[in-house]
Amino acid sequence: MAFEITDEFLENLIGLIYKNDDTAIKVLFEEVHFADIAEVLDEVNFDEAIYIIKLLDSEKTSEILTELDEDTREKILENLSAKEIADEVGEMDSDDAADIIGELSEERQERVIDALEDDELAADIKELLSYEDNTAGALMAKELVKVYETWTVAGCMRRIRGQAKEVTRVHSIYVVDKQDKLVGRLSLKDLIIAKAEQKIAEISKTKVDAVNVNENDEEVAKIMAKYDLEAIPVVDDNNVLLGRITIDDIVDVLKEEADKDYQMAAGLTQDVDSDDSIFELTKARLPWLFLGLVGGVGAFIIMEGFHDIFSKYGTLFFFTPLIAAMAGNVGVQSSAIIVQGLANDDVKGSIYGRLLKEMLLAALNGVILALFLFIFVWIYKGEVNLSLAISVSLVVVIIIAGLIGTFVPLFLHKRGIDPAIATGPFITTSNDIFGILIYFMIAKMILGI
Amino acid sequence: MAFEITDEFLENLIGLIYKNDDTAIKVLFEEVHFADIAEVLDEVNFDEAIYIIKLLDSEKTSEILTELDEDTREKILENLSAKEIADEVGEMDSDDAADIIGELSEERQERVIDALEDDELAADIKELLSYEDNTAGALMAKELVKVYETWTVAGCMRRIRGQAKEVTRVHSIYVVDKQDKLVGRLSLKDLIIAKAEQKIAEISKTKVDAVNVNENDEEVAKIMAKYDLEAIPVVDDNNVLLGRITIDDIVDVLKEEADKDYQMAAGLTQDVDSDDSIFELTKARLPWLFLGLVGGVGAFIIMEGFHDIFSKYGTLFFFTPLIAAMAGNVGVQSSAIIVQGLANDDVKGSIYGRLLKEMLLAALNGVILALFLFIFVWIYKGEVNLSLAISVSLVVVIIIAGLIGTFVPLFLHKRGIDPAIATGPFITTSNDIFGILIYFMIAKMILGI
Repeated sequence: MAFEITDEFLENLIGLIYKNDDTAIKVLFEEVHFADIAEVLDEVNFDEAIYIIKLLDSEKTSEILTELDEDTREKILENLSAKEIADEVGEMDSDDAADIIGELSEERQERVIDALEDDELAADIKELLSYEDNTAGALMAKELVKVYETWTVAGCMRRIRGQAKEVTRVHSIYVVDKQDKLVGRLSLKDLIIAKAEQKIAEISKTKVDAVNVNENDEEVAKIMAKYDLEAIPVVDDNNVLLGRITIDDIVDVLKEEADKDYQMAAGLTQDVDSDDSIFELTKARLPWLFLGLVGGVGAFIIMEGFHDIFSKYGTLFFFTPLIAAMAGNVGVQSSAIIVQGLANDDVKGSIYGRLLKEMLLAALNGVILALFLFIFVWIYKGEVNLSLAISVSLVVVIIIAGLIGTFVPLFLHKRGIDPAIATGPFITTSNDIFGILIYFMIAKMILGI
Repeated sequence: MAFEITDEFLENLIGLIYKNDDTAIKVLFEEVHFADIAEVLDEVNFDEAIYIIKLLDSEKTSEILTELDEDTREKILENLSAKEIADEVGEMDSDDAADIIGELSEERQERVIDALEDDELAADIKELLSYEDNTAGALMAKELVKVYETWTVAGCMRRIRGQAKEVTRVHSIYVVDKQDKLVGRLSLKDLIIAKAEQKIAEISKTKVDAVNVNENDEEVAKIMAKYDLEAIPVVDDNNVLLGRITIDDIVDVLKEEADKDYQMAAGLTQDVDSDDSIFELTKARLPWLFLGLVGGVGAFIIMEGFHDIFSKYGTLFFFTPLIAAMAGNVGVQSSAIIVQGLANDDVKGSIYGRLLKEMLLAALNGVILALFLFIFVWIYKGEVNLSLAISVSLVVVIIIAGLIGTFVPLFLHKRGIDPAIATGPFITTSNDIFGILIYFMIAKMILGI
């Protein structure tokens, strides 16, 4: 379990590589899990990684490739021949194989698939590549254990001994009719507990959850999480069994989804990690920053519009960062709660109900905060009117910020747009502008200027 | 699969409840998955929910209870007698049972456990309740299939027929020695493929991943995700097999973790959903908002400190919201990338390297944005010095904001504090203040005031 990549380990490894001590290297990796070897490859330099990949036998390296971080894998695959890749891929489950081949250029895909010895796998991969990204079809594996409803338990046991060899994990045995339509499922457990002469139809559960091959993968993830499924069969429109999706793929989908939302909330326009190139990172960060700049210019223009009260009530201007910050924070809080609620399917009831609730909530928060502000300004400045103007407008700003933060994601969701884009900079920026505008308008009113 | 809670369905159901037409209600729920029934219970009013729970047989309702949203479950359990709860819990796996009993008050826990008919389950639940929250022990289930290394395949098959009945899903069969120490594992598949007379020791894999009972659950989640495990055995310090954790529990851990980080980034201090009470929501939202208020007051004091340049360069003050916004956005972006990198364990190399990279990155972004700002102010105001002062300080502010956003989470992480708290309002607020301070200082320098 507790394998740690120590500097000693790396030094030792690299030393062996330069001594070309292949046997020692093999021994070194003997007991190491492929997921850990993948991490090692991310650590060592590129030639060393290639050396290791070419050295270890493809049964192990195929697993490693699937675990590698995408950039590293891409570089490595570029340095392998179509034949070499085919050997690696030949050891993989169809879904992993398809994913990796899918990362190659069109014409390399051709050559690798042609180079595959196992024609059935080649056909499976071609099929899997044919499905659109982010669908059940693109996620599923073709490997599964399938039996016919007419078989007996004994016969079934004999037959699946063959099939099971190719399937890494047998979650369910799927029962089909002669047209290969899914009619039920049973677990190995059921099979073991049953009597040898029983018919499959007798012991199989006929109520079997399945997803359509064109279903969106995030939807599949929701379904599997909700119903605690560890594998789900994938069928076409005629309910013909095409493949199955296992929970470990879903774990990845969930993680990606969460990362995506988190990054959107942070104002990153694409999936980046801290190790990406500065150019990549700039591409991801600049767009929202630019929006922020435009927003700031908007705020500038608004404030300039009020410059006439500048001489008399300059203090008002010193509070604009506070107003903007509060508007932004409140907006982000409200939108985050809605976005998360939508993601977990627990936003029910009418929009108006929500807005009303948010209004009360924001008002409550606003009044509490404004009270502190009022006292501070009063003590600090000794001007009741000014304190009143600032505090009252703070309350209004907070309420409106909350309403915007609640409404926008709900609106986007209704329009079929991912509400997550409404979090972070988008809300912050728009709230900055609205906030400052409202602030000065109300302050002016109260101060009677 | 596609069960939708329609208004018709609800009306119909509620109608039947008031007619006390129990048989019809049972028929109505016949084909409905318990996870869907749980959602129905969240929809109907409280008495109706109780009515349904008491009506359906505990085999079904026990499943429903585990799926229910915590608040609803709490209310329902309050209205069930210790005996009734014991009947529900008696149908559950030990981990779900322990979770639900754990939600009860100390003395109710006692009474429910005493009321359990199954003494073994009672003992298991007591044990599970004894482990600390968020440890492998608190997450695991006691149900598993265990065989002794000395058994033969045939004998093993016979024995596990018994054990398997109690285990919902058999992922792995765990092999132990006479002291119950974990020595290996095999899958049902291996068992089916093997020959009847073979010894378990011959066909079992001796390299078996396991986690210690005191391991943190997020760590367990990482391990299972990394190694694509669907179940992992839990052992004590002497490697004695205590239980197992299955992937569906891990899916929940991952979701909770992601939600938590997301909420922290949005400035929510505790897990809330949009349906919580206004009081709950205020408790979650007010703390960070208050921090924002304090930050805003800080910004006010800084700006007032510069009020002497007010008459001459009032325009500078109109740009403070822009400066603050940019500082905040940059800081949040940098910290989010680091926080996510830390969560996925792919932040490697030295802190200084990271900070240097962030500096270059921020400088690049900053210069591009400052260029636009410079041109705008120049055209709009026609004052080169002013434009220069504002743009140059924007660049510096962005660089420093980026550095803060990068450094703080790394620092917290090194100190063993969850870096996620460094995202959102925390970074935004501190960057607002620093940003504005730096902005005026540099502007003053350049304008030679």
